[in-house]
Amino acid sequence: MRILILGAAGMIGRKLTTALLKDGHLGGAPIHQLDLADVVPPVMPVAAAVQVQCDAVDISDVSQVNKLIGRRPNVIFHLAAIVSGEAEADFEKGYAINLNATTYCLEAIRRIGAPYCPKLIFTSSIAVFGAPFPALIEDTYATTPLTSYGTQKAIGELLVSDYSRRGFVDGIALRLPTICVRPGLPNKAASGFFSGIIREPLAGKTAILPVSTSVRHWHASPRAAIGFLLHAAALDLAKLGASRALSLPGLCVSVEEQIEALRRKAGDAAVALIESEPDAGIAKIVAGWPEGFKPQRALALGFKGDESFDAIIQNYIDDELGGVLPPIFTAL
Amino acid sequence: MRILILGAAGMIGRKLTTALLKDGHLGGAPIHQLDLADVVPPVMPVAAAVQVQCDAVDISDVSQVNKLIGRRPNVIFHLAAIVSGEAEADFEKGYAINLNATTYCLEAIRRIGAPYCPKLIFTSSIAVFGAPFPALIEDTYATTPLTSYGTQKAIGELLVSDYSRRGFVDGIALRLPTICVRPGLPNKAASGFFSGIIREPLAGKTAILPVSTSVRHWHASPRAAIGFLLHAAALDLAKLGASRALSLPGLCVSVEEQIEALRRKAGDAAVALIESEPDAGIAKIVAGWPEGFKPQRALALGFKGDESFDAIIQNYIDDELGGVLPPIFTAL
Repeated sequence: MRILILGAAGMIGRKLTTALLKDGHLGGAPIHQLDLADVVPPVMPVAAAVQVQCDAVDISDVSQVNKLIGRRPNVIFHLAAIVSGEAEADFEKGYAINLNATTYCLEAIRRIGAPYCPKLIFTSSIAVFGAPFPALIEDTYATTPLTSYGTQKAIGELLVSDYSRRGFVDGIALRLPTICVRPGLPNKAASGFFSGIIREPLAGKTAILPVSTSVRHWHASPRAAIGFLLHAAALDLAKLGASRALSLPGLCVSVEEQIEALRRKAGDAAVALIESEPDAGIAKIVAGWPEGFKPQRALALGFKGDESFDAIIQNYIDDELGGVLPPIFTAL
Repeated sequence: MRILILGAAGMIGRKLTTALLKDGHLGGAPIHQLDLADVVPPVMPVAAAVQVQCDAVDISDVSQVNKLIGRRPNVIFHLAAIVSGEAEADFEKGYAINLNATTYCLEAIRRIGAPYCPKLIFTSSIAVFGAPFPALIEDTYATTPLTSYGTQKAIGELLVSDYSRRGFVDGIALRLPTICVRPGLPNKAASGFFSGIIREPLAGKTAILPVSTSVRHWHASPRAAIGFLLHAAALDLAKLGASRALSLPGLCVSVEEQIEALRRKAGDAAVALIESEPDAGIAKIVAGWPEGFKPQRALALGFKGDESFDAIIQNYIDDELGGVLPPIFTAL
């Protein structure tokens, strides 16, 4: 089979590429060709056992999308997006990438027509929900986004459902929890601290905590996120019925629970590197975010989240730190 | 103020035109100019006290939308749509009119920019909901449409909310109940019988009932629908908060209750004109439609539905039959 990853150069895209090349199969079928596309050129994997093509593309250009889809991939992972903060700051860019490009992708598939009907795994977000909402959001709760990013994702979900219902594509929209622990450098995303308060202390660096330790949020590890994508690609999507959008199993944990998990893993010295610096602006943004879900449909369909926040931290240590804590914590 | 009606030649558009010209005011402000636009040329009202302009337009043509919005109407009623059955039969036409044209309208407004920020009253539909759902759908229930028409309306709702949140427009999306009693000739819409079983007997003609009398549905009279539009246009829409989509108060009545209301108004002779002719195809479609709502937000905002189905029938007799029953029923 031929697989296309849109947004292959991002953190999730790179991990998905690695997982696909390691398996060599998807849903029981051998992978013959992997197409990696992103606005920045994806890095060609070394010693890949399958044919890989890397393309730097602008998916807000319909002709470039048509070219990628014209290769008729059997499975498309559409991970490409302008993140929440940037889509809010640049209205036109957000709609161009997060909505129009998704439409181009669906239309390119529809215009090729039967018997071509690829699987499309579209990454949506818990940002399709906006306050007020209950502590745990059920599968039948209304999407009332409070950002343009969330609006664009909610519209993508509706389009994926309608194009699937009409038989043009076999799609699913996965509402990913916030990914934690996100590797790499600190960024300015309002959600950045959820990862920062684990990642930075584990590197022996200080981390700023801008909100109260009582704040609850909905987390999934990068490893769980890759698991969701692979499970969706192997799933009989007809089981979803008419609504192809799915809230996924995450962990509803408070910042305090995150910190105590860090303490169990790396001790008081690590926790001491977290500096409380309340930021009313960030606190207000975070207050509009979901705290947790009852993802009963996803659980019934076999999607599996992380077991505990301790396991999330251990995943991070295994996947990003080579399985070992820095010397300052090894005395534990 | 200047008012634009998109879809002015339709049943609701014509009644709205009449109401606006009769009042001469909207939300306390005098109407100076009324722009009537539709794909078929709107009929110029006779002896209108305000300036009226009629345009035959194709709103799937962005330049024609830009021209209408370029006149900077203060209030825009966007009623234009391809109906459910046609949007299902002609996928491209449905998306062109029900989604793209709405986008053109919002973008034309945004591109003019501040201080221009008109009121936009967008007619959505209960078709944004799809089975399974509870007997009475609450305001926080998810939109999972089962038709392309419902999908296009649900997307319109999200766009109206986001453009309003960003301050580009001051919009509201009204989820109109099924309009009953719809005047005019019988049509092939699956919902047509809800009106037909009242309208046709009142004209002394037979009507076909294709479903069980136990079927429940959500109705509003044309008069109530015009009331919703005028109330929305006069309302401080900031009261809606971030979600600008609103389920409206209708009447949840069974076909049997409709028939008994007809009997009270026009007697057994009228009811005898209803012929039961079960149609499994129509029954299946109707089974996917909402039965009723708990429109608490709309009620709190002062939207008023019909008092009873008896009143709906009386409205029809008053507005469409000159207030009198045909001779065959006048013995009552």
